Amino acid sequence: MIHTLEWTAAGVRFIDQRKLPIEETYVTATTPEQVADAIQTMVVRGAPAIGVAAAMGIALAAKNSKAESVADLKREIDHTAELIAQTRPTAVNLFWGLQRMKEKFEQLRIRPITQIKDALVEEAQRMHAEDIAANRAMGRHGATLMPSQGGVLTHCNAGALATAGYGTALGVIRAAVEQGKKIHVYADETRPFLQGARLTAWELMKDNVPTTVISDNMAGAMMRQGKIGAVVVGADRIAANGDVANKIGTYTVAVLAKEHGIPFYVAAPTSTVDLACPDGSQIPIEQRNIKEVTHIAGKQMVPDGVSIENPAFDVTPAEYVTAIITEWGIARAPYSESLAELIGKAQVEV
Amino acid sequence: MIHTLEWTAAGVRFIDQRKLPIEETYVTATTPEQVADAIQTMVVRGAPAIGVAAAMGIALAAKNSKAESVADLKREIDHTAELIAQTRPTAVNLFWGLQRMKEKFEQLRIRPITQIKDALVEEAQRMHAEDIAANRAMGRHGATLMPSQGGVLTHCNAGALATAGYGTALGVIRAAVEQGKKIHVYADETRPFLQGARLTAWELMKDNVPTTVISDNMAGAMMRQGKIGAVVVGADRIAANGDVANKIGTYTVAVLAKEHGIPFYVAAPTSTVDLACPDGSQIPIEQRNIKEVTHIAGKQMVPDGVSIENPAFDVTPAEYVTAIITEWGIARAPYSESLAELIGKAQVEV
Repeated sequence: MIHTLEWTAAGVRFIDQRKLPIEETYVTATTPEQVADAIQTMVVRGAPAIGVAAAMGIALAAKNSKAESVADLKREIDHTAELIAQTRPTAVNLFWGLQRMKEKFEQLRIRPITQIKDALVEEAQRMHAEDIAANRAMGRHGATLMPSQGGVLTHCNAGALATAGYGTALGVIRAAVEQGKKIHVYADETRPFLQGARLTAWELMKDNVPTTVISDNMAGAMMRQGKIGAVVVGADRIAANGDVANKIGTYTVAVLAKEHGIPFYVAAPTSTVDLACPDGSQIPIEQRNIKEVTHIAGKQMVPDGVSIENPAFDVTPAEYVTAIITEWGIARAPYSESLAELIGKAQVEV
Repeated sequence: MIHTLEWTAAGVRFIDQRKLPIEETYVTATTPEQVADAIQTMVVRGAPAIGVAAAMGIALAAKNSKAESVADLKREIDHTAELIAQTRPTAVNLFWGLQRMKEKFEQLRIRPITQIKDALVEEAQRMHAEDIAANRAMGRHGATLMPSQGGVLTHCNAGALATAGYGTALGVIRAAVEQGKKIHVYADETRPFLQGARLTAWELMKDNVPTTVISDNMAGAMMRQGKIGAVVVGADRIAANGDVANKIGTYTVAVLAKEHGIPFYVAAPTSTVDLACPDGSQIPIEQRNIKEVTHIAGKQMVPDGVSIENPAFDVTPAEYVTAIITEWGIARAPYSESLAELIGKAQVEV
């Protein structure tokens, strides 16, 4: 069992993903500022995980608060939400997590402060549990799409480490393996942060799922050699039309999959779908520090002064996406209809 | 001026490409074994450069020889050729360089040993000079294909450092820039060995050609954003039908270029064309040590025991190649005709 993030008596405990796979260490954020810092510096990453982390940051602000009036508590929570909202712009789950906590607060504001605090802490923990349940449901739906045997390519880490547990894309793979499918995972190393080499490989090795790490530029050759039967990736934000923002390089994989007639699946909870965003051109793309590209393991790899690009995400247009696997079922094109329908279903049943 | 490799009184002097761009250091191979080792360990790399290095290895064997009969000298040269032939299997230039030296020896074998030795040293130096001249000719032909302004993507290093000087793909870019074209180079970093980040960026910075390094998986996003007007790469072996073996990841770039309607050019001397090889399936692909993928700057990046692939090259089928730029002119599909024609022309004019 991988404990990506947990609510503890001391605060929010994270596995430090920057140290994996060489060291398995944990850090505990005891203030909302430390939660924001953990998100910003990628101690924790992955859209669903940072959604839950954001909620726990709000819960921590409430728990730590010395406010004597509900209005003061609200100011503190709003301030914390603003702080956390500034950490990473692309994954909509972050804003979803903050919004859900604010709505919970609004429902509770006529209650005594101690009750509000307790309820917010409970809500964040509930979101943690719901995320795991959603991933298991996604796994059940998505496993039917996986080949009964052979290679499945994934990019970045959309696993237990990117969520509260079990994973989105890797949850689909886990569920398929649990059903007896003989899957061999090809994990793109995923430069510059190497989430595939470091994190996906680590968690799949823990679960004894056969895994081969390749550099990102080998994906085309592997597909041409017939080694890949399907691609499954996660998402950081899905627009209403089905355009998918995900880790840089996902679009390249999608183009390769199309060229080779390989299905390209996206697995994500409905909290990743942003119906307010009509298409991918409206999704803000985070530009990260160029040092992630220029330096590896502290060593400079490029000549001084050369220009660098480091977008953390790219957008894969909906037409490259064979299906989107959610906890409520599988959406297919036209996504503007199928996604809206799944989300409507979610709202009725919740 | 970049001195990739040079014949000197002391032996064959190489810039140590493993240390670039941080350190500019040189090593001198004083024996053929040291030349073979320099090729094997990638002190020197790039198909045309290792062709010349192989020839210089034979020249060094001849120069160092204590043989008193031509038959003994031949045995030593054959032994050296066998040794060097085992270093790297994919680039045909290596075998071409060895073969040309052996043919020279056969032409000379009725001469006195000292004359043979001198002539072999001269021949290797001539191949060095011819390679630079070929690259300049390639540049003149290829520059006409470059956009008058905008981004040109290249993969790996097919520059001065991959040749005796000036470069194949980067020679085309240099010639275009010399003609006044306003080109901005996008250099794929080229995992696992980072030839793009380390070598292409270094030599283009020296020449003040505007250059942006990207991780390999950003190429698709850059193309979709309209930043790339053309792709130009080198080659390690070109089959008679126009299939191109080049650095791993080249095929992925070719697929991306096709999807975006961007021309994909290959620049290589005719010594890279292997008419004896009918198509790409017949090209041996070197598998290199997995440590190139698992470790960066000496630090382990993957969990213990995970599987790794590390093919050094892939094959891009001819149908993805817009044109092949050689020193004798530009070949276009059907390549089985155009390449044979260019090589026939080369043989008549030489």
